[in-house]
Amino acid sequence: MSGNTFGLLFTVTSFGESHGPAIGCVVDGCPPGLSIDEAYIQAELDRRKPGTSRHVTQRREPDTVEILSGVFEGKTTGTPIALLIRNTDQRSKDYGNIADTFRPGHADYTYWHKYGIRDYRGGGRSSARETAVRVAAGAIAKKWLAEQYGIVIRGHMTQIGEKPIPFARWEDVPTNPFFAADNSVVDELEAYMDSVRKSLDSVGARLRVVAENVPVGWGEPVFDRLDADIAYAMMSINAVKGVEIGAGFESVAQRGSVHGDELTPEGFASNHAGGILGGISTGQDIEVSIAIKPTSSIATPRRSIDKAGQAVTMETHGRHDPCVGIRATPIAEAMLALTLMDHALRHRAQCGDVVVSTPRIPGRIG
Amino acid sequence: MSGNTFGLLFTVTSFGESHGPAIGCVVDGCPPGLSIDEAYIQAELDRRKPGTSRHVTQRREPDTVEILSGVFEGKTTGTPIALLIRNTDQRSKDYGNIADTFRPGHADYTYWHKYGIRDYRGGGRSSARETAVRVAAGAIAKKWLAEQYGIVIRGHMTQIGEKPIPFARWEDVPTNPFFAADNSVVDELEAYMDSVRKSLDSVGARLRVVAENVPVGWGEPVFDRLDADIAYAMMSINAVKGVEIGAGFESVAQRGSVHGDELTPEGFASNHAGGILGGISTGQDIEVSIAIKPTSSIATPRRSIDKAGQAVTMETHGRHDPCVGIRATPIAEAMLALTLMDHALRHRAQCGDVVVSTPRIPGRIG
Amino acid sequence: MSGNTFGLLFTVTSFGESHGPAIGCVVDGCPPGLSIDEAYIQAELDRRKPGTSRHVTQRREPDTVEILSGVFEGKTTGTPIALLIRNTDQRSKDYGNIADTFRPGHADYTYWHKYGIRDYRGGGRSSARETAVRVAAGAIAKKWLAEQYGIVIRGHMTQIGEKPIPFARWEDVPTNPFFAADNSVVDELEAYMDSVRKSLDSVGARLRVVAENVPVGWGEPVFDRLDADIAYAMMSINAVKGVEIGAGFESVAQRGSVHGDELTPEGFASNHAGGILGGISTGQDIEVSIAIKPTSSIATPRRSIDKAGQAVTMETHGRHDPCVGIRATPIAEAMLALTLMDHALRHRAQCGDVVVSTPRIPGRIG
Amino acid sequence: MSGNTFGLLFTVTSFGESHGPAIGCVVDGCPPGLSIDEAYIQAELDRRKPGTSRHVTQRREPDTVEILSGVFEGKTTGTPIALLIRNTDQRSKDYGNIADTFRPGHADYTYWHKYGIRDYRGGGRSSARETAVRVAAGAIAKKWLAEQYGIVIRGHMTQIGEKPIPFARWEDVPTNPFFAADNSVVDELEAYMDSVRKSLDSVGARLRVVAENVPVGWGEPVFDRLDADIAYAMMSINAVKGVEIGAGFESVAQRGSVHGDELTPEGFASNHAGGILGGISTGQDIEVSIAIKPTSSIATPRRSIDKAGQAVTMETHGRHDPCVGIRATPIAEAMLALTLMDHALRHRAQCGDVVVSTPRIPGRIG
Repeated sequence: MSGNTFGLLFTVTSFGESHGPAIGCVVDGCPPGLSIDEAYIQAELDRRKPGTSRHVTQRREPDTVEILSGVFEGKTTGTPIALLIRNTDQRSKDYGNIADTFRPGHADYTYWHKYGIRDYRGGGRSSARETAVRVAAGAIAKKWLAEQYGIVIRGHMTQIGEKPIPFARWEDVPTNPFFAADNSVVDELEAYMDSVRKSLDSVGARLRVVAENVPVGWGEPVFDRLDADIAYAMMSINAVKGVEIGAGFESVAQRGSVHGDELTPEGFASNHAGGILGGISTGQDIEVSIAIKPTSSIATPRRSIDKAGQAVTMETHGRHDPCVGIRATPIAEAMLALTLMDHALRHRAQCGDVVVSTPRIPGRIG
Repeated sequence: MSGNTFGLLFTVTSFGESHGPAIGCVVDGCPPGLSIDEAYIQAELDRRKPGTSRHVTQRREPDTVEILSGVFEGKTTGTPIALLIRNTDQRSKDYGNIADTFRPGHADYTYWHKYGIRDYRGGGRSSARETAVRVAAGAIAKKWLAEQYGIVIRGHMTQIGEKPIPFARWEDVPTNPFFAADNSVVDELEAYMDSVRKSLDSVGARLRVVAENVPVGWGEPVFDRLDADIAYAMMSINAVKGVEIGAGFESVAQRGSVHGDELTPEGFASNHAGGILGGISTGQDIEVSIAIKPTSSIATPRRSIDKAGQAVTMETHGRHDPCVGIRATPIAEAMLALTLMDHALRHRAQCGDVVVSTPRIPGRIG
Repeated sequence: MSGNTFGLLFTVTSFGESHGPAIGCVVDGCPPGLSIDEAYIQAELDRRKPGTSRHVTQRREPDTVEILSGVFEGKTTGTPIALLIRNTDQRSKDYGNIADTFRPGHADYTYWHKYGIRDYRGGGRSSARETAVRVAAGAIAKKWLAEQYGIVIRGHMTQIGEKPIPFARWEDVPTNPFFAADNSVVDELEAYMDSVRKSLDSVGARLRVVAENVPVGWGEPVFDRLDADIAYAMMSINAVKGVEIGAGFESVAQRGSVHGDELTPEGFASNHAGGILGGISTGQDIEVSIAIKPTSSIATPRRSIDKAGQAVTMETHGRHDPCVGIRATPIAEAMLALTLMDHALRHRAQCGDVVVSTPRIPGRIG
Repeated sequence: MSGNTFGLLFTVTSFGESHGPAIGCVVDGCPPGLSIDEAYIQAELDRRKPGTSRHVTQRREPDTVEILSGVFEGKTTGTPIALLIRNTDQRSKDYGNIADTFRPGHADYTYWHKYGIRDYRGGGRSSARETAVRVAAGAIAKKWLAEQYGIVIRGHMTQIGEKPIPFARWEDVPTNPFFAADNSVVDELEAYMDSVRKSLDSVGARLRVVAENVPVGWGEPVFDRLDADIAYAMMSINAVKGVEIGAGFESVAQRGSVHGDELTPEGFASNHAGGILGGISTGQDIEVSIAIKPTSSIATPRRSIDKAGQAVTMETHGRHDPCVGIRATPIAEAMLALTLMDHALRHRAQCGDVVVSTPRIPGRIG
């Protein structure tokens, strides 16, 4: 395909520009009989909604999702599920000034050179707005994985700019604007982000996403490994520049006698693997960490060029997130859910749901 | 596909187990008229050959490649190119002891649970031996990219265990056993690796791979981004636990005013992007960094279980690399080449080879 | 994918049920810079619109298409083009009686057994209404093929029931309700169809579709041959039971000395091949013929069963086409256009637009 | 992919030229635990072997298959199964005369124009020799389908040239050189084929392939319908020009009250559908009929051109089948098996092996 379809068996085909009539997607391959409705999907969508705090874009967009097909009397029918989100708040005037110039660090430049034409309004197709449809599609995968296997997928921010954010408890995550797992640091983060915004600048972020209760055996070696497909899924999110599984880059300095997770009759004694060995899930928690670069649209003047190749000075005003990572947690959860669901179906296709005839070992320490 | 085919248009379908009759692949989609022969592919293969120094496995395997199809009178015909490498040095006795147990950190456990059967000899399908065919296939992509666009793809080791390896000059890389870009540190690395080996342990490594002269415009948003497909390609290499593009995880603490590469009439003023914006190549060098975990097969006794779930103590002897990262540089180069070639064809399919009607900006500082 | 995406590079992902909120599709991979608008697509859609004569369903559906993305200032941008058609005339009461029973010759039975749930209203996903989106997507392909290569794709009905329809002239096709290429037989066909309708029965049809000016060289042996993909495309149209390329089933009784089209310096001397040899286009006209079965929903009482497996008598009333083949010509043209466009891009990817270094032979007699 | 891979989940990637070192394929996605060995595959291969009677090519080729991977201790492991057949009898001199000219009705012309280079020896990649690997791969699918579902796939010739061949009994098929289901007509066919050969000409053939005991529910609407994928599979066989499902082209003249198969509590009362409705299997026998054109390589002089476009007279000598259809029955069976197996896995992926919660209706009359 031409790049806008995710997955092999559980597929999401995404469409839409930031300031066009609508964004949306077609979800194909969903098993029949799953109960979903617009209210459920809307609740997931609202987690990444703009305008929820002073630290994210003030664009006011209800992001109301409509199910166009594939659901009958509240249940999926096995046919394609089309999801539609109309664009409503499109202040194109905010963006007119970038029609002929390229923002440093932004896709303006590459879209123009690739296609020779681009919808520059709000970044057009390259806008992070597209990720809303990933969250909507991911909600379907999350529900199926939870109902079929009890899988729980959740994420939190572990660093913003130079500020590390410790993990205290999952319960805190939904109660603060940063998806931080420790409310005691929120005041400090608020002050930090205010200072970043005042300096007309932006910062990056680091997120961690975890999937619990994933069965042993998902993933297709040698190329479509579960970790390879997770890396692809995460790097396909706007602004992501790095992906780690388990110990990630810390593995470099580790000794084999430390890194390799020992097995005991009660389960694994550690989880440096991040729940994947040889590209196949182990039953340990799947642990993924991603790096998100700072927002490229900032009000600080920077050197750039225009379409004619002439030097210009760019400063971007308008309603941009000072840290695109703040709203990225639901997106990363969604991409992990989509990846796991696709592999769940792929595993079932080749190996069925048969249980291996050996004592099943608990995948992780309780 | 079921996981053993890489790419959409330039595809590599890999097969073979470590101790079966042979390993190999089918390369489909290669443009016609490219001059290749066995000698050229063999030269690339020999770069990852075992037994080249005391720091890698002493398995003696000529890894002789045979071209079975797709080449006529020295030129590719556009039909599938099948490459065959017979396995010759198979000391299965080395591996008999792992038939019923699982090595910590190894795919033994996951293959067994996924398929309910596995060729345990030498790790079977999960052996890094499979990567030889990637290098062979990558050699074809490298040659086409060089002839068509002058693209140069090369890599070097930037860290082994806790030892960082500075970059001095590309010329040094082929002249030492570590793919180090600075021969002045080689003696130190030799001593270091000797001590690791004596301690019956293993270490990880970090590599950097660079592609120069990649045109602007390769990559398919929003899912099949060039960086997403590179992440997939790199994470599909055995033992890789992390992938970075450009500034990678350093982006987290960077300000937008620092990270975003300024543009000037002479080109980009920096390369934090790693040559990719919005999933599309910028014309800057493509910069990729990967983390490779320490070898899981070590002689240090470790806790594990057998198929019956009973506790056992594992210590793996035999001919294992104390650092699988040492031979990984040609593999990472090959995977980057395969990814770029697939995207070169995908770009040509949709956008043709048309030059954009604006003054072309040099993609990078000379 | 799960079956609702057509094509490899120029893809159409279809969604929607007959009586759901909407039908539509996402067209991905369209080259940038193609001029399209809703009026153009609408004109193609209107060719298969219901209610145009007394010989087709009286369902009154404007089938108004909306472009949701991928087009900016009247030109394609290279990003996904989403097309939406709202369902407006949904008399579900017409269909309530089939909720628990299966119409002979209809997909009711198989959808129920495959999925265990189905939207029975108007046949749900199995309704021929879905083909409207194929015509809309095909319109885009038709325009690109015409502008790039001067390709002309058109079809006509060659038989309805036991009545053969001779070919007189293309000009007649749009001027009668049967897509007949000879207006002199239209009165006879009108009377024939009236009698079929009065007998509460239905009939099949045979169509011929032709593509002119297709370049030599399109098609990917050995599986994705151009003729193999055309056969797939045509057989994917509701009610199609047979496909022929060129001489088709007549080839069986032909001698090789008759079937094989001789070549002369002026071109091919005949076209039994139907424009394809070895799965690759020859430059001759591409000639395809398809068989369409009679409508399965008829008012004649027939034996069937209900969900409980009990015997019932079915007679289907409502607004059904007495010959589904009548409106199928635009659909067959669209599927041929989609197939050719996908192969045009695939050929360009591997072989570029390079002209072969031999005197180009005219592909067909002028 | 670039055309040489068949299937989505159970994939066959084919390679090799008629006179290169070898032909073969990689079968990926096979479920683990299936017992196969070279002897079993060889037995299927021998059914299409050349030189078995005076009515087929006298090329003497043992076609010995070697399993290179994916099988351990007699069972499939779930990893790719590579099959290799070395070419042994390559009389290239027979073919030198066609290096610069094009045989009427042959792929010489299209391969040359597509790729600008071709291995002309024995037709190179376009040779029907490639179909040997389909038979080998199909043997694996046949065995799995038989063991899992009791599916029986078999075919026979129904017409050769203008001679129809009635169906008497399956038992006769393996006992005569024509795959005829009635030995009483074999003498007549022998005489007929002798006369065709003496006339230095060739004829076409018509085959019928049947799959029994296929469960209800296989096939993925709306594009990847089971019948659409069967049409693709059959049309991908060399020389096939037409495909019919069930009543095929006879459907055109049928009334809906005749064509639509009535359902009774005991099963379907007829099988005009050919076992597929709405693209999904019904449980009836799957019935496929194909048309195969006459061999294009004949000794009768015919008009053609050379690479320079100059008129030449062609007469092809050498060891060609006077009717390529004679050896096509095992190939058609193999392609049907490969299609069914792929859909079996696709169905299991989305819908599992769950039995629908209604009394299961026998799919066909006993």
